[in-house]
Amino acid sequence: MRGGPAALQSSVTRLIVRPASLLHRRSNTITTLTTIQSIILHRVLQKSTGKSGTTLTASATFSTMASSFHPEQARVPPAVQLPVPPITKFKIGLCQLKVTADKERNILHARTAIEEAAEKGAKLVVLPEIWNSPYSNDSFPVYAEEIDAGFDASPSTAMLSEVASLLSITIVGGSIPERSGDKLYNTCCVFGPDGKLKAKHRKIHLFDIDIPGKITFVESKTLTAGETPTIVDTEVGRIGIGICYDIRFQELAMLYAARGAHLLCYPGAFNMTTGPLHWELLQRARAVDNQLYVATCSPARDVGAGYVAWGHSTLVGPFGEVLATTEHDEAIIISDIDYSQIELRRTNLPLEKQRRGDLYQLVDVQRSNSQ
Amino acid sequence: MRGGPAALQSSVTRLIVRPASLLHRRSNTITTLTTIQSIILHRVLQKSTGKSGTTLTASATFSTMASSFHPEQARVPPAVQLPVPPITKFKIGLCQLKVTADKERNILHARTAIEEAAEKGAKLVVLPEIWNSPYSNDSFPVYAEEIDAGFDASPSTAMLSEVASLLSITIVGGSIPERSGDKLYNTCCVFGPDGKLKAKHRKIHLFDIDIPGKITFVESKTLTAGETPTIVDTEVGRIGIGICYDIRFQELAMLYAARGAHLLCYPGAFNMTTGPLHWELLQRARAVDNQLYVATCSPARDVGAGYVAWGHSTLVGPFGEVLATTEHDEAIIISDIDYSQIELRRTNLPLEKQRRGDLYQLVDVQRSNSQ
Repeated sequence: MRGGPAALQSSVTRLIVRPASLLHRRSNTITTLTTIQSIILHRVLQKSTGKSGTTLTASATFSTMASSFHPEQARVPPAVQLPVPPITKFKIGLCQLKVTADKERNILHARTAIEEAAEKGAKLVVLPEIWNSPYSNDSFPVYAEEIDAGFDASPSTAMLSEVASLLSITIVGGSIPERSGDKLYNTCCVFGPDGKLKAKHRKIHLFDIDIPGKITFVESKTLTAGETPTIVDTEVGRIGIGICYDIRFQELAMLYAARGAHLLCYPGAFNMTTGPLHWELLQRARAVDNQLYVATCSPARDVGAGYVAWGHSTLVGPFGEVLATTEHDEAIIISDIDYSQIELRRTNLPLEKQRRGDLYQLVDVQRSNSQ
Repeated sequence: MRGGPAALQSSVTRLIVRPASLLHRRSNTITTLTTIQSIILHRVLQKSTGKSGTTLTASATFSTMASSFHPEQARVPPAVQLPVPPITKFKIGLCQLKVTADKERNILHARTAIEEAAEKGAKLVVLPEIWNSPYSNDSFPVYAEEIDAGFDASPSTAMLSEVASLLSITIVGGSIPERSGDKLYNTCCVFGPDGKLKAKHRKIHLFDIDIPGKITFVESKTLTAGETPTIVDTEVGRIGIGICYDIRFQELAMLYAARGAHLLCYPGAFNMTTGPLHWELLQRARAVDNQLYVATCSPARDVGAGYVAWGHSTLVGPFGEVLATTEHDEAIIISDIDYSQIELRRTNLPLEKQRRGDLYQLVDVQRSNSQ
């Protein structure tokens, strides 16, 4: 079907939807397809493909119906078109690492894992949440690094930068405790194949939960929450970043999708209570609802640790399907990503054109304010 | 923990959050907790419980942190408080019915199933999507009933009204094709124990999908989409209604949660392609993200039908846990609902207080316009 009627319908629909979005921004009123426009559209489709089967009629109907409900208003500002990624097919590597109390060892160990993933063909490597330090409020201040002060002050990110450049890969560097002034953050750094820091995400939603007798943790005792979503254009597509608890907030994933993300990466350390219940569920939900790829990377399980991670790092495709996963031991997952699947699934189920902007709207506050 | 520090924290936080919401509506600016207010809050908590353990400190921290990010602004208008339901614990019955081309038989058969569910203690009975007619665009006009014209014109809803009243139960009557003027809808009727029609939901998101070689269906060929979300206060709590494809749109569930729903009911007929991939996933996602109950009811599978339903009617709890489910044959699922679990889970993971209204906002357009 690729390049056939479905693909044509997709491009024709875009022609219709885009001017409406522009109108929205100018005057807040929308023109919908007239019957005549629908007929013209139908004829164009007939002419271009030389047939007039059910699928074509259906495609025209999709567009007409969708426009009258202002789907482009379901995201404020309107969703951007999915960008053409620099690469469509590539391998991703998820390094589910053992983390110890020995920071130097953790850094060397992560480096070795990244090298192994790259050897196996990974163009993008993802590390776990808090991979250079034990996960505890006591440890965060001790292991924290001043990322903004340069690589001398941050051996963990210095290693990531060096290895990204040496191997010519993109790295979503899990997260480490970051010190900035008198504040501490849970921070993910993204490096490009030139070794440059491309983006820095500070965990937006701190992990403050209390399930008595099971798991109680209050990150906000030591950490400060980040102030902004983080989405970054890389050599391997547009990537939205979340850290662990960020994945519970569906709004963040929706906002990244509207900004044109191909892939969401969530370094995360779910635990033995919420892990089995929610870890895969949330990844698959974010993927299927937003029709994009989701990759997660957890530390390996250490039953002797103060906080016992669930493991189960996973790659999910845009149909909500688990493409690769693992158990709780150390592992390097290598799996294929094919961004053309995003467009395919969005053609199968054209959710974006079916949303009801007349009934609900998700406002991306910072993007809205910047326009 | 119920009535203990967690419950107290919950009510104290409400005292803080509510005035902020009011301010929002007046001036669009928010006052946040000062350090002094935090200390007072902490002292109040200490005094009320006679101790000053970690949990209390954590609770105070939750409130302080949350308020500064304007969680109450993450829903526009702000989310209403979860209402006290008329009943906290009750049994729900999900009737996974065989549907035939014989409408009279379908109505009698549904009636028998409802009676059986009520005999087994169900106070709320849910029927499948399109239970009085085959699921096809050819059948919809033939089987459609004029619900608004009274029970003489609608034998299917007449039966539901009568049996609800006789058995003194609430019925979420799946859906039937509805004729109104020259339009057809896919419509769910909710009846109270007095037999009165309490609400009518017309499917908002029509099922227009095209997975070549697997499943192609274009409901919009015959049906018109509903114009409004439907949430209704019943004898068994506040229920938000969606029909089948409506479940794919997370915004609708978020909007119902913000309107104070205890339970979302989705009569639905997923198919043999999307059923195994997405049916349970979407239900569990809506439940865990919104921390409420989700009930679904499908027709039984008929492999000889033009559209083959997946079955697997299910009840999911507010932690995303499957509480009861079935395979694809005819079945009446009886399961317990306990709304106190909603508050428990919202205390465990206080998502509503942790949302970032400074970064994203979901606008409930109709509720917003009516204020």
